Order: sequence, then C-alpha cells, then structure tokens
Amino acid sequence: MIPSLPVEFVDNSLKLLDQTRLPLEEVYVKCENIEDVHQAIIDMIVRGAPCIGYSGIYGLALKAKALGNSYSHRDMVQAASYLKSARPTAVNLAYEIDQSLELISECNSWHESFRALIKFGNSKINKSENDHRKMAAYFIDDLDKRVGKEKYNILTHCNTGFLACGSTGTALGAIQVLGELDRISNVLVDETRPYLQGLRLTSFELTKLNIPHQIVVEGAASYLMKNKLVDAVIVGADRIVKNGDTANKIGTSNLSIIADHYGIPFYVLAPTSSFDLNMDSGDSIEIELRNEDEILTVGGKRMAPEGARALNPSFDITSGQLITSIISERNAYHPPYLQSLGEMNE
Amino acid sequence: MIPSLPVEFVDNSLKLLDQTRLPLEEVYVKCENIEDVHQAIIDMIVRGAPCIGYSGIYGLALKAKALGNSYSHRDMVQAASYLKSARPTAVNLAYEIDQSLELISECNSWHESFRALIKFGNSKINKSENDHRKMAAYFIDDLDKRVGKEKYNILTHCNTGFLACGSTGTALGAIQVLGELDRISNVLVDETRPYLQGLRLTSFELTKLNIPHQIVVEGAASYLMKNKLVDAVIVGADRIVKNGDTANKIGTSNLSIIADHYGIPFYVLAPTSSFDLNMDSGDSIEIELRNEDEILTVGGKRMAPEGARALNPSFDITSGQLITSIISERNAYHPPYLQSLGEMNE
Repeated sequence: MIPSLPVEFVDNSLKLLDQTRLPLEEVYVKCENIEDVHQAIIDMIVRGAPCIGYSGIYGLALKAKALGNSYSHRDMVQAASYLKSARPTAVNLAYEIDQSLELISECNSWHESFRALIKFGNSKINKSENDHRKMAAYFIDDLDKRVGKEKYNILTHCNTGFLACGSTGTALGAIQVLGELDRISNVLVDETRPYLQGLRLTSFELTKLNIPHQIVVEGAASYLMKNKLVDAVIVGADRIVKNGDTANKIGTSNLSIIADHYGIPFYVLAPTSSFDLNMDSGDSIEIELRNEDEILTVGGKRMAPEGARALNPSFDITSGQLITSIISERNAYHPPYLQSLGEMNE
Repeated sequence: MIPSLPVEFVDNSLKLLDQTRLPLEEVYVKCENIEDVHQAIIDMIVRGAPCIGYSGIYGLALKAKALGNSYSHRDMVQAASYLKSARPTAVNLAYEIDQSLELISECNSWHESFRALIKFGNSKINKSENDHRKMAAYFIDDLDKRVGKEKYNILTHCNTGFLACGSTGTALGAIQVLGELDRISNVLVDETRPYLQGLRLTSFELTKLNIPHQIVVEGAASYLMKNKLVDAVIVGADRIVKNGDTANKIGTSNLSIIADHYGIPFYVLAPTSSFDLNMDSGDSIEIELRNEDEILTVGGKRMAPEGARALNPSFDITSGQLITSIISERNAYHPPYLQSLGEMNE
C-alpha cells in the first residue's frame, strides 16, 4: 500500500520516511549514528509517539555499534539520556528507551547489545500490528453498541496511522479496519493546524487505502456535527492519566467539548504504553510550547504581518469526563476512569 | 494609521485595497465600471459584509454614469440584480443595493442618480464610525458589569475591523476602543482557516494600532480558556435572526460552545443592517460552500495529496442560546432573544 515502512532498520542503518516532505515527495533519510537519529526526531522527519519510540531503540543500537570494543553499559545510559532529550514530552520515547536499557543491562559486548536491540525494535513493530487490530475490534464493538449503523461517518484529528505508528495505527488503524469491512461512509479529516498532519499525512494514508474522506478546517466541527455528518469522533493520545484526562494534539479538547454538546461519542484509542497511571490528573501534564513560526509561516511563506507574534501550544488536555470510551489493545474502558483504569494494574 | 481607506470613491472610480495581498503588499485596485466591482467582490479583493455593501452602492453609481444619456431606472434595477449575484449570501450587499434603488427611484438622469449614490455611499461610511463607537460603548458597559476587570484578554475570530467595515469596525472596533482606553491586556487572534483573515488582516490592523496580540490556531480555544487566558469572546455577524441564531465565519459556533463550557461570555457585535427579523431561526439560513482549493492549497501551494477532496463550508450558525449578548449601535440585547430582538421593530 504505502511503498515502504516509515521506520525500518536495514543495511546497518535506520531508514526514515521524511514526514516533513509528505505528501509532495516520498524521500527517505538514512541515519548512520545516534546523532542522526537525535536530529531526525528534533526536525520531525520521524513523528508520532510510537515511531519516535522505535527510532529510540534503533538509535541506541547504532550507539552500541559505534562504541565497538570500548562498549560499556555506562556509555549506553548516557546515550539514552541524550536521545530522550530530543523530544522530552514524548512518553513513548522515554518508555522504549528505559525498556531498552533494562534489556541490555546484562550485555557485555557491543555486538550482543546491538543484536538484542535490533531484535527488540523489530518485534515491537511486528507486535504493534496485532495490538492495533485488537484495539480496532474493541472500538467497533463499542461503536456498534452505541450507534449501531452499517456504515459510519467518522471525524478524526491529526495523524494516528501507519506513518505515526509503523503499522496499522490507533485511531486511523480503526478507520482502516472499518474500511476493510466496507463500513466507512465518510471520514472527515481535520487539517490539524499548524503542522497540517491531517491534510498532509492522514489524507495521504486514506488516499492510499482508497477510503472516502474529506479534509475540513477545524472550525467546521460544530457545523459538521450539527448537520449530522459525524457519528463518532476518534483520536489517539500522547499520554492518558489515572482520571482519564488525555494529552493529545492541540484541537483535541475542542472536539471533545463540541461532541459532548451534540451528544456524539468521543473515543480515544492508544496502546498501553501511552497510559501514565502514576499521574492523577491532566493538570500535572506539561504542555510543550513550540516555535511561533509554525503559525506565522504558512506553506513555507511568512503570511503574518511584520512584528506579529503567535502563541503555539502543541498539545491540550481533554477532560476524562468528556471521553466516552478509552480503548487500548487490552480493553475498552469507560467512565468513571479512576475506577476502570485503576483496575488495569491489578 | 492604515494608509488609506479599504473602499473609497475617488477620481470617478472605486478604489479598493486588495485584501487578498495583505499584509505582504498594500496594493489598490481601481474599478472603472460595474463589471470591475462585480469581479472584485467575487475575487475577494473587497471583503467584509459592510465593505461589500458600500462597494455595491458605488458600483451602481458607476453603472449610472456608464448609461449616460440612455439612463433608465429599469436598467438600474437590472444592474442591481447583476451586482447582488456576486455574493448571494451577503445580507449587507442586498440591503444596501435595495436601499440605493429606492433612493434613486425618482431620478431622471444619470447625473442626478450618480450624485445621489455617491453621496449615499459616503454618508454610510461616515456614519458607520459613529455607530461602531456606540456599539463599543454598549459592549464595554456589558463586559464591565459581567467580568469587571481593569484590562481584558479578548479572543476574536476572523476580521471585523477597519478592513471589513471601512471604519473602526464591529468586534475589532470594540477592541480598538478598549485599546484607546489602555484596557487591553492581550488579544488572541484566531488565524481563521482557510482564508486566514485573522492571521493576515486582524493581526495587520492590531499591529498598526499597537495593540498587544498573539495569533493562535483555532484548535487552541479550549487550551486558552481552560488556562484562563480569555475573559470574553467577541465576534461579528453576517446575519442575525429572530431567535438570536447568528450566521458568521466558520469556526464561530465552535467558540460559542467552548466558551459556554468554560462559563466565558460570548458576544456578537453587528450593525442593525445585519439583523434579519423576518427569519425565525438559523436553520433557514443557507450556508455557502466554497471552493475546495481554499483548503487543499496552503500559502499558494497544493499541500494535500493528489486526488484528495475537501468540504469547505464558509459560515456556520451559532445558536442564540449560547450568545451572552448581541450588541448593535442601538442597544445590547440579552436572551431570550425572541423577546428582546422582537422589541427592535416596535
């Protein structure tokens, strides 16, 4: 379907699909060492929490190889901190890197460590496909019970598919599965300003999958819901905490409030690795403020007047109280989340 | 402040500030005949319901001149229909053109008609400044009673200032007056996709007025309100009907729902000519669907994948139930609007 994987370890290097140039060009970037991987994350060549996590694992493998005969676990721990600093707010990057360090804690040579990490990264990507399909099944079951239509109109935000996840995807994965079952009437794709992940990436994936869709501006949400063009809203997550509060791409919280106003179900789909049950409420999640130029410059051209400023929060917190169901590869969780998510650890 | 007027009749022609090229270039377009005016409206060289209305009056004047000695009222009636077709959903265009026809119904020569129309257009623009300042006074009085701060953080959408109105402006006019009183802490300017009226035009005006502001993506509304960065939302209107339902730029209805969720007052500011009390509810208002390319092409460059489609409703309906106060140059109206607006005609 899509020509190659967004994240793939081949020929002793990490091959990344350059997501800043999609959909106009399909160009691959070759990372030969950990520094290349670090920079690719900063430059958003690789994006989507899961894909950033996988890149972290392969970045560590490249570091092991570079250390060669001087390999030591201490150097790997240092390299891990360096890699994490490329995207401090991404939960999955820290999660996968910490798991990697634990995995190689007993390794005594670069070669042993390298092989373990490559195997670990590959198995993660391979397993995710299965997890995403489980998630989709829980979602469809829940949606059928709540809405019960043969074909659905789905509104989604940002990009949560193959490009973000390295396999089917979370919210967009569920849309793909519905598409395979011929149960999609239409997908409304939020263009997702300022980075246009919906316009550029989600539409790119849906086009390749031959799933009917229309790109919309985010301002259209109320119009679409009021005119009964939306049966459900589904999104991914960057972090889900104990009371169900969910950090996700800026604009997600708007959708949850508008969906609630019109009585339309609002779903969050995310793998278990996105749940942070050590945090009680979303109020503790730090929101990354990104560069103003992402707003002031549109399509590579400065469009704002000289001297104008912007405020560019990159994420927002959707209140758990407005989320109909939170779905992982293990289960569909329902409010009150303090109770249902609390049982995850038991 | 701003070098010249957006709409001005000089040297026997209509001089329009080309709003498609702002803020990068300040270029003027000269309309020598009614056909030029018709095309300028279609091409959005002139925009904003009030400015489109004034252009309609001057367009008729140019037609009278062109008719010369063959002048007849019947030809003017035909020309009026032609002009209205340039923007069928704009209430003010039809309103001003109908008023113009009535004004010249007794005119017997092109010259008499021409002079009456130019005088009429000029007086409309001159009067609007005064009306907008009255509107601002009603608004500030209402805001002080409800919120009562020395300086305010205001969120606004689209462009409702000098460029749209030919003088101070409605919502943005009120912001200007607050600015003159040094009572603005910060203005949050919705960039307003897809046409970017906020990013390009509102920010341009606020920069010239030296009023502190930050451009934000529309997805940030919930983040901003949750983090107490917004004391009130104020917008303009394209049409206000009997129950308070208000047609305005796509994205307005989203803001009203989110403001209601957070208990933040939501204001509509519009001149009496934007009220349509013959219509009972917003459900009867037809929403203009504009060209998909406005979404698919970003900053002059096609950003969406090949074959991708868009849905581009240009306006939405904000429920009167979610509007704290509707303010005209005559009064501040409060819910229930069926009652308070009903008294307007008495």
